[in-house]
Amino acid sequence: MAQNIYDRPDFFAGYSRLDRSVRGLAGAPEWPTLQSMLPDMHGLRVVDLGCGFGWFCRWAREAGASHVLGLDLSEKMLARARAETVDSAVAYATADLEQLSLPDAEFDLVYSSLAFHYVADAARLFASIHRALAPGGRLVFSTEHPVYMAPSKPGWSITGDGRKTWPVDRYFVEGERTTDWLSPGVVKHHRTIGTTLNLLIAAGFRIDRVLEFCPTPTQIAQAPALAEEIQRPMFLLVAAQR
Amino acid sequence: MAQNIYDRPDFFAGYSRLDRSVRGLAGAPEWPTLQSMLPDMHGLRVVDLGCGFGWFCRWAREAGASHVLGLDLSEKMLARARAETVDSAVAYATADLEQLSLPDAEFDLVYSSLAFHYVADAARLFASIHRALAPGGRLVFSTEHPVYMAPSKPGWSITGDGRKTWPVDRYFVEGERTTDWLSPGVVKHHRTIGTTLNLLIAAGFRIDRVLEFCPTPTQIAQAPALAEEIQRPMFLLVAAQR
Repeated sequence: MAQNIYDRPDFFAGYSRLDRSVRGLAGAPEWPTLQSMLPDMHGLRVVDLGCGFGWFCRWAREAGASHVLGLDLSEKMLARARAETVDSAVAYATADLEQLSLPDAEFDLVYSSLAFHYVADAARLFASIHRALAPGGRLVFSTEHPVYMAPSKPGWSITGDGRKTWPVDRYFVEGERTTDWLSPGVVKHHRTIGTTLNLLIAAGFRIDRVLEFCPTPTQIAQAPALAEEIQRPMFLLVAAQR
Repeated sequence: MAQNIYDRPDFFAGYSRLDRSVRGLAGAPEWPTLQSMLPDMHGLRVVDLGCGFGWFCRWAREAGASHVLGLDLSEKMLARARAETVDSAVAYATADLEQLSLPDAEFDLVYSSLAFHYVADAARLFASIHRALAPGGRLVFSTEHPVYMAPSKPGWSITGDGRKTWPVDRYFVEGERTTDWLSPGVVKHHRTIGTTLNLLIAAGFRIDRVLEFCPTPTQIAQAPALAEEIQRPMFLLVAAQR
């Protein structure tokens, strides 16, 4: 079972205060990029893996999806998602992505935002998603970028001449990374970019687009702290098709 | 025109002393990985972009290719390639990958080792390659990895606790990188991994495999200096199909 960090009181409280929790999709700087990778949503049957507070599920319905299923491991997040959703075509359920089991060929779009790096067995996950998609169906997801996740001690380093750098090591040492983010001992699973893409291809997907989140000049003007994101990739965004 | 660094006397002399120049493919630690991405060579019409001394061209013929064309910008390298090749089915010609022009649908395999990072216009290059391939034809290439190429000052940094790290910055600042390697002022062109893959897809390719060179334990035992390659990716290897 994946670590259920979101139900820890300290993590949940911290996560609830993030801009992306307070403002929803508009508070996630990578959302415009991820949105640009989505198909026309009209009439699509959608599942959101790691739906959190349900922001994307509600957006998907407003964008025209016929049915949306939001899955998450966190009961606390699902409780708030249900409380904030008044739409009988949006359903929520508890699910562990490590044990994901979905009906065959039932969805046109599988979406996931920043959840896959909590999953150890990506091969199993991608195979489950492939089976759950109707032929021609899409998978669009974001995950922490391996360059961001690899280091023994992730964090900025300032060089003698004042540059902000991201010291990478252990890139090829795949597996667990334990970090302190909102709560101590958060367990993530590092995979190289090659591993992620090849596992998708091995599961039967065609890779359609690979993007790495980089803030726009407008975003940086509005939130100057984002400027550092130009130095190294934080999120990997992939669109693939069954 | 791409910078013709290989014909500079100091660069050529230095390059000629590299293990991969003296021992050929066996002296290139990423070769076994790149080789694993190649199709069965029997009967294939092959072009090698940036063929250097012709090691791969000769290997391709021995592996069963019917015709091999080696292209390079460096007259010095082509002269040695011709001098070391006794096979009428292997031909060499001068070509600038920035201006590549090949006959339509004439090749079954386009191969390139560590040459594409010298090319500024990858979109043009990939479109030319796609046109030159017969339907179902393959492109297999290696290039410097963007994580290796991005930094303002590429090089290892030793942390206070003795770890060797690769400080990344300017990842999203694509374009020229000038470094001193064998000769001062070597110009390379940095692209993110997303840009490289999306340009391939936009040119019409299907991505089949994405690997990042990592030495095996056996290679490290034989050449302990390779151990540092586990810390960050140096080469990006891609197999794609028309």
